[in-house]
Amino acid sequence: MTALPSVVAAPTAPQVLDRCRELVHPALKETVGRLHPWLGEMAAYSFGWCEVGGTPVVAPGGKGVRQALAVLGAEAAGAPARAGIAAAVAVELVHTFSLLHDDIMDGDETRRRRRTVWKAYGTGPAVLAGDALFALAVETLATAPGGAGGLRLLSTALGDLVHGQADDLLFAARPWRGPERVRPDEYRAMAEGKTGALLGCSAALGAVLGGAPPATVAALDRAGRHMGIAFQLVDDVLGIWGDPAVTGKPVHGDLRERKKTFPVLTALSAPGARHLATLLESDVEPAVTAGLIEEAGGRTATLAEARRHIAAVETALAGVPLEAGPADELRSLLEFLVHRAL
Amino acid sequence: MTALPSVVAAPTAPQVLDRCRELVHPALKETVGRLHPWLGEMAAYSFGWCEVGGTPVVAPGGKGVRQALAVLGAEAAGAPARAGIAAAVAVELVHTFSLLHDDIMDGDETRRRRRTVWKAYGTGPAVLAGDALFALAVETLATAPGGAGGLRLLSTALGDLVHGQADDLLFAARPWRGPERVRPDEYRAMAEGKTGALLGCSAALGAVLGGAPPATVAALDRAGRHMGIAFQLVDDVLGIWGDPAVTGKPVHGDLRERKKTFPVLTALSAPGARHLATLLESDVEPAVTAGLIEEAGGRTATLAEARRHIAAVETALAGVPLEAGPADELRSLLEFLVHRAL
Repeated sequence: MTALPSVVAAPTAPQVLDRCRELVHPALKETVGRLHPWLGEMAAYSFGWCEVGGTPVVAPGGKGVRQALAVLGAEAAGAPARAGIAAAVAVELVHTFSLLHDDIMDGDETRRRRRTVWKAYGTGPAVLAGDALFALAVETLATAPGGAGGLRLLSTALGDLVHGQADDLLFAARPWRGPERVRPDEYRAMAEGKTGALLGCSAALGAVLGGAPPATVAALDRAGRHMGIAFQLVDDVLGIWGDPAVTGKPVHGDLRERKKTFPVLTALSAPGARHLATLLESDVEPAVTAGLIEEAGGRTATLAEARRHIAAVETALAGVPLEAGPADELRSLLEFLVHRAL
Repeated sequence: MTALPSVVAAPTAPQVLDRCRELVHPALKETVGRLHPWLGEMAAYSFGWCEVGGTPVVAPGGKGVRQALAVLGAEAAGAPARAGIAAAVAVELVHTFSLLHDDIMDGDETRRRRRTVWKAYGTGPAVLAGDALFALAVETLATAPGGAGGLRLLSTALGDLVHGQADDLLFAARPWRGPERVRPDEYRAMAEGKTGALLGCSAALGAVLGGAPPATVAALDRAGRHMGIAFQLVDDVLGIWGDPAVTGKPVHGDLRERKKTFPVLTALSAPGARHLATLLESDVEPAVTAGLIEEAGGRTATLAEARRHIAAVETALAGVPLEAGPADELRSLLEFLVHRAL
């Protein structure tokens, strides 16, 4: 008789996301069900569970990366998946709150091919629904066994999230050149706050509820933050050079919207960037600008920076004792989030 | 030699408010100072500390009832005033967050004779500044010694606050008569959520940080909730029959805005209310409507209901052991909040 091969393929990221989504869904649904019915409908609409008016539907929700990180954080700490459920619910609520409010601030009218909540229900109701989700996230952790300790982590992440969003809003009004221009390191700090803080908090909160020691919690927080920055950098590359058929976004969309993304800001720091700055201030065809940004090294530098943050995720994960299976699943999530452009 | 009289007059409510405001101010200022500078300016503007642009100024802030309740809650539990400071800071931050967001939802353009934050800085920035204050309140309690236990109380109050605001927004769209009309008991529940929950939480949180036993915490929470309902009812009476020179509000303002307040809703429940409902649906002079509401017993019933809640405050306070001095100061705050119309 031949022995079976001892190496079992690790689950793919979509499998990991599906498993965690199915595990967390009942608790998330029950928690949202405790909201005021009107606010609960807006929340359900944004999760893709219903149409305006409340008719049930299956619309695309988010990928559920944050809930997966929370579940894997608990498992990586040696706890059963269910230990991370309260953390998973809390971070999905926070994520949805931030989408609702960000869409108001950014004036975005569609998300996942549907009207945004403020567009469908009005600005005031969308503000209130966001507040309700925020409050519910705090309550979920405050009443979870062992969750009180996680509230410090969550409140730090919330503060960073708001700080990052403030910077992002202010960047839009700053010039492309001169002493007031946005520097790449300011952009990186913004991306860590706006995207990394909640990813880090997700994994760390799961670990806290799973009873992990402080060093493990801190390492998972760090890993998630680097993952968030890497994801944002890759997203920036795709926002300029991505294939619209794959990304679902318009070609050169970020350039048309004059977004201050990392490739542009790095290119502007290169010698001879004056011409690029002039073009950015004018109405020139984005394809021309994209070419100049690439020539100035903006694309290469952004991908190199993304690789540095991906390596930092690995360093953080390798520095503490973690259960091998869940740690590998964390790695496949990271790969899934960033492989698109590398 | 004659002995000095042993009875010293209790401080008046303005003295209590001043003492607590001075005690809490340095911590509140330091906490707000940790915000992103742009968000911190919006917060300082709404506290009355600066003008748009950041120039320091002394503009009227709020009365500071919530911070005073938190300090008195700690003192009533036998702790020093300083034990309640973190609670006081947290509830003032939550109160300001809710004002910022409510002004957006209600479209109010002025508050305390200045432009509201959304009017002065824009809707998006005001949403974000509110979020930042909310996050800061959670962080303040999460990092305060003994504050973790208070986060459950705070999150319940936040949930009730949002629920009350949702009901208030929905009441506006409901009819004056028929099965869909707003019933007085629905209004009372809305007022408890929107006004009472945070007042109750303020006193209770102070007590929690002051080390009070659960029965004392619950009694102070109850007392604050009834105080909030009584305050709202008195405010409703003043909104229809108050002297504009005293209230600073336009005469019959609530009737002109067609607000569904307790006096109107009670009057509509009286026999023969059909005529009143017809008037409310038409463009008749508010003075006529005010007369009819009074004739139908709306004013008397509202004041009687307010007195019931004032009595309930006393019942709550008398049912647990409290330090006599702070308990009397709590009573003078209540008197101050409701004496205007009784």
